[in-house]
Amino acid sequence: MEFAVIEGIKHSMPPAPEGEVWIGDDAAVIQGSVGMELFAADLVVAGVHADLSIVTLEDFGWKAIAVNVSDIAAMGGVPRYAVVSIAGASGGEVEKIYRGIKEASDEYGVRVVGGDLSSGKELVVSVAVIGTTEGRPPLLRSGARPGDFIFVTGPLGSSAAGLALLRDQRREARDGEARDGEVRDGEARDGEGVKEADSLSPEAISKLAHAYSRPRARLAEGVTASIAGASAMIDISDGFSADLNHLASDSRVGVELFTVPVAVGATLVDALGGGEDYELIFTAARPEDVFAEFERAGLTAPLIVGRCAEEPSLRSLDGGVLPVVGWEHNL
Amino acid sequence: MEFAVIEGIKHSMPPAPEGEVWIGDDAAVIQGSVGMELFAADLVVAGVHADLSIVTLEDFGWKAIAVNVSDIAAMGGVPRYAVVSIAGASGGEVEKIYRGIKEASDEYGVRVVGGDLSSGKELVVSVAVIGTTEGRPPLLRSGARPGDFIFVTGPLGSSAAGLALLRDQRREARDGEARDGEVRDGEARDGEGVKEADSLSPEAISKLAHAYSRPRARLAEGVTASIAGASAMIDISDGFSADLNHLASDSRVGVELFTVPVAVGATLVDALGGGEDYELIFTAARPEDVFAEFERAGLTAPLIVGRCAEEPSLRSLDGGVLPVVGWEHNL
Repeated sequence: MEFAVIEGIKHSMPPAPEGEVWIGDDAAVIQGSVGMELFAADLVVAGVHADLSIVTLEDFGWKAIAVNVSDIAAMGGVPRYAVVSIAGASGGEVEKIYRGIKEASDEYGVRVVGGDLSSGKELVVSVAVIGTTEGRPPLLRSGARPGDFIFVTGPLGSSAAGLALLRDQRREARDGEARDGEVRDGEARDGEGVKEADSLSPEAISKLAHAYSRPRARLAEGVTASIAGASAMIDISDGFSADLNHLASDSRVGVELFTVPVAVGATLVDALGGGEDYELIFTAARPEDVFAEFERAGLTAPLIVGRCAEEPSLRSLDGGVLPVVGWEHNL
Repeated sequence: MEFAVIEGIKHSMPPAPEGEVWIGDDAAVIQGSVGMELFAADLVVAGVHADLSIVTLEDFGWKAIAVNVSDIAAMGGVPRYAVVSIAGASGGEVEKIYRGIKEASDEYGVRVVGGDLSSGKELVVSVAVIGTTEGRPPLLRSGARPGDFIFVTGPLGSSAAGLALLRDQRREARDGEARDGEVRDGEARDGEGVKEADSLSPEAISKLAHAYSRPRARLAEGVTASIAGASAMIDISDGFSADLNHLASDSRVGVELFTVPVAVGATLVDALGGGEDYELIFTAARPEDVFAEFERAGLTAPLIVGRCAEEPSLRSLDGGVLPVVGWEHNL
């Protein structure tokens, strides 16, 4: 069975260029990079990183690639090659996951060149990706200096709000089914998110749901920030305040936020600590260069949310204390 | 908790050289290879790839690295960098796993430069590794030609025999405990392996157990086979006959085996289909070059077990039919 599945995967991918060898040997053979390379890995676990009762296996495969591309984007680089290992999926499930992997790898220009399949009790998709900074210096978390402006590439909290929305929709659907059958189960409806959703346009609702089910890596934005002279960068996976705290701690600078941009339909709590937005936080000394470069690239302008301060322990929001909250893996 | 664990991991590893950035940023920054690189991934799942009632978490970590190094070795390359993602381990478990990872990465000269930690119900260690062929052409599975001699780097079946032995030892220990407490549980003892083990020296027993708990990647052997002009290579993970069949099918050659080298304490079934030996199978037209190169490198001479034949469907052992058996992942 494994070999048939691997053959199917191989045939769904483009052929390797001359001299390269992709899926099917002990290791892939790929063209090396002159200069520095980027190398990152992230895994997604069903029930931890995606609720498979509200998103599809295709979404799960998409996400496994997107979160890895986001890591490369957060260094100001572009992804080149990925390897994908899957545990705990049946052959049919592997095919669905690979459909999402293919969509994401096509979207971000990353070639899936190898990996592994294994049995297991729990569905895990583990991806590693190689990227390049194309000769630019990598954008570390540690490069911010006092006085640098703090940017984010978009409003925050969509993913957390989307998750709440999708869970409410599922609950309503179940309640509806129960009513239709004249049987009511005792499941409580806390209604959180529903009230929000009631006042939203269908487009806004769809956008929130999509933010959770198909997160986007800000690849073009990361490259553009790098070209524009950004000093430090990180992607938002744990949550805005936790990830900004990582950047500030590694750079030994304080943080003075003027504002937190909250996505339509999301709450401030979603925006500060919801996580998995995959927007980029970056710092730069010259905002005019940043805005000019984003405009040149045809990208939506990033948002200035604050400045880096001398005092390393400072974490303030609009004069008050910025709460450092975020999603920490439950080890 | 996650950050403390990551800090601990970071401090157990050597510091990154100038210009490189290892564990702690969104992606690692590493020196690229001029020419071709190797890129592979393999994951190990508790209960599938290692029985944690008979091996330690340190062994499990070792194995996760060794199986990936073996993939690089099977291309005639050497590993350079690895990323390690772990799901389903507590902080204390991560530390133990990393002790084995460090031992293996020191042994094989691979630097662990990043990865991921996640919660999960099942323990999974997923590794991806980058390697280089150091300018030599990669040794693919598809390069064997009719007339080439077939080599293996050592006798086979130790891992399967070691597993049987360790399970027997555990069962005996349990039976002993049960007797001591004058309570006999009804657990059946099939005795398989025990009879074998009774006639073995303590050294042979320890060697078999070690083959299962601490498999070795044949890194020096792979490089030496490449230098000696080998035409094709594969490592034995699924089992000798299954992996030889992969090589022969990809090369479109037949196989005529004279012999199968069985490790002391193992059976022919262990040797043919037990799998996880991580010895290398390779083919070469000129055995004299192979033996000379292995001697020059100070390595034990590999064993000639057969020759490649014109007829692609031929799979024979000592004039009879070679059974293609092996461990296939249960998808």
